[in-house]
Amino acid sequence: MTHEIAVIPGDGIGQEVTPAAVDVLESLELGFEFVEGEAGDAVREETGEALPQETYDLAASTDATLFGAAGDSAADVILPLREAVDSFVNVRPAKAYPGIDAVRPETDLVFLRENTEGVYAGHEDRLSEDVSTLTRVVTESASERLAEFACDYVSGTEHDGFTIAHKANVMRETDGLFRDTVKSVAEDNGIETDEVLMDAFATHVCLDPEQFDVVVCPNLAGDVLSDLAAGLVGGLGLLPSANIGPDRALFEPVHGTAPDIAGDGLANPAAKIISAAMLLEYLGYDEEADAVTEAVESTLAEGPHTPDLGGDASTEDVTEAVIDRL
Amino acid sequence: MTHEIAVIPGDGIGQEVTPAAVDVLESLELGFEFVEGEAGDAVREETGEALPQETYDLAASTDATLFGAAGDSAADVILPLREAVDSFVNVRPAKAYPGIDAVRPETDLVFLRENTEGVYAGHEDRLSEDVSTLTRVVTESASERLAEFACDYVSGTEHDGFTIAHKANVMRETDGLFRDTVKSVAEDNGIETDEVLMDAFATHVCLDPEQFDVVVCPNLAGDVLSDLAAGLVGGLGLLPSANIGPDRALFEPVHGTAPDIAGDGLANPAAKIISAAMLLEYLGYDEEADAVTEAVESTLAEGPHTPDLGGDASTEDVTEAVIDRL
Ligand SMILES: CC(C)[C@H](C(=O)O)[C@@H](O)C(=O)O
Ligand SMILES: CC(C)[C@H](C(=O)O)[C@@H](O)C(=O)O
Repeated sequence: MTHEIAVIPGDGIGQEVTPAAVDVLESLELGFEFVEGEAGDAVREETGEALPQETYDLAASTDATLFGAAGDSAADVILPLREAVDSFVNVRPAKAYPGIDAVRPETDLVFLRENTEGVYAGHEDRLSEDVSTLTRVVTESASERLAEFACDYVSGTEHDGFTIAHKANVMRETDGLFRDTVKSVAEDNGIETDEVLMDAFATHVCLDPEQFDVVVCPNLAGDVLSDLAAGLVGGLGLLPSANIGPDRALFEPVHGTAPDIAGDGLANPAAKIISAAMLLEYLGYDEEADAVTEAVESTLAEGPHTPDLGGDASTEDVTEAVIDRL
Repeated sequence: MTHEIAVIPGDGIGQEVTPAAVDVLESLELGFEFVEGEAGDAVREETGEALPQETYDLAASTDATLFGAAGDSAADVILPLREAVDSFVNVRPAKAYPGIDAVRPETDLVFLRENTEGVYAGHEDRLSEDVSTLTRVVTESASERLAEFACDYVSGTEHDGFTIAHKANVMRETDGLFRDTVKSVAEDNGIETDEVLMDAFATHVCLDPEQFDVVVCPNLAGDVLSDLAAGLVGGLGLLPSANIGPDRALFEPVHGTAPDIAGDGLANPAAKIISAAMLLEYLGYDEEADAVTEAVESTLAEGPHTPDLGGDASTEDVTEAVIDRL
């Protein structure tokens, strides 16, 4: 079976790291068909729309999408794209790699972030000159769907259950519903959980990241806490992510467009290539996924390195080094 | 002029560190009158109420309050107490001390956290079996009041303006109003600002805390980001905070009740004593405030140390060491 893969490089270094990931996938000769779509600041400048309808439709109809990064228009691109794939969970591993400088080299976490609601549901009003409101939405059904994914994710692996991070001491009804639902689904599945307030998590993950493993959280908590973990492992440059829906999924590096280095061919493609490995795993190519991940890991350990990691290799050099290791 | 100070030790180590702070204040012989109030899990067990009305009234009528910590009932105690003093800003310095192990010893930040609204305004509903909502509120007036405080706070100091941390790319109306209002007040006052998304802040503060200084943020962002900074400086044990209102204020350590060590007389009183120094400053005793802060700092540098810092001194030993240095 062949797969159609949407490729949406976006802006800045998205234009450099996305082709690198495609090169790696092509080198595997799995017969993928790649279809390119436009999104981001550049296309908005041209057409007035950061995410043209045809790009949305492309993501909504292909098996999987490789997304790069978008500039100022990021929220206008990535939030609708997550919706296009009906993505209910954002999987964000944050792992320190041997040989790479990290604030906390022991960090090895996976965030399973609710990807559809919370403050991102986005009903905002300006009630008066003085008062603005935002309606934060938490549903039992979305919490259940996330919890079932989380249970599957840890079942039969070395992960010993998961931690629920929330702020139910203040958001009692909404985060309370989230916590109670996730807990009860986990209990039904015989999965161990513990819980932590998101503020306490922020402190404790700095002091001792090894006490956490898989962390399940509402949308904004997942956004902030996974970016915090990115800081602990040495930056966004190495973090992949997967936006998973029931029928399709979208894979993106956590980093942005890096305007300071964009265009020089020196962007680190690691996060994007590991995102492509997550795509392979999603499509059932487990062996190939592992091979790509290992090839990236040994390239990170042994070089060549792009300038962000202290080397002087180009995006292409690193990509070739990964392909050579496959 | 004498001042009436409410003293609310609360639960756990609150019962140990709060008297330590009172001892330090008494040693200064400023003629303060201390009036004790009850709050927390223990009084809730007895009376059904975590914050008895008379304790609320006490905090709402004295010049300043020293609060310790509360256990499971923390939210039911501290949120109404903040309201009792009409506290519109929570001042949270997060500074690494020489001689104390820190993940990021260069950290020296002050968070000015909006203290009345955001998700803490807390209008929650269960619309249906499936759907719960929370109405997050951001007003121009609260943002203005905070911004004016922030401008005063940095004016004529070594602080070079402040950073606004927010999530206005997603919460466009509400955090947009917050950001725009704070910015415009700062402009009117000739204060420099820059801004950062709260998720990006979480990454960058780990990588390079020195790029930030004073950080102004909405309520929940301030909660999580200041706790993150607490992790970077080595834990909550050393962080003081001030909840400031127009006519009175409440001072509390950022740490909790530490049930594992409560009752042993081994709690580190540093955060609480620095909170008392913030109280002194608030009441206009600037010299005394500096003296207490310096006495705590040299005690942290030279000892004696409580067990959390690797020593075997008691709360009382450390308190005496601070008083001896005054
Ligand atoms: C660009 C922005 C809308 C997005 C988010 O908040 O989810 C980003 O920060 C992320 O985490 O992918
Ligand atoms: C106890 C809780 C309600 C409180 C808060 O969220 O503000 C605490 O975390 C804090 O930061 O003082």
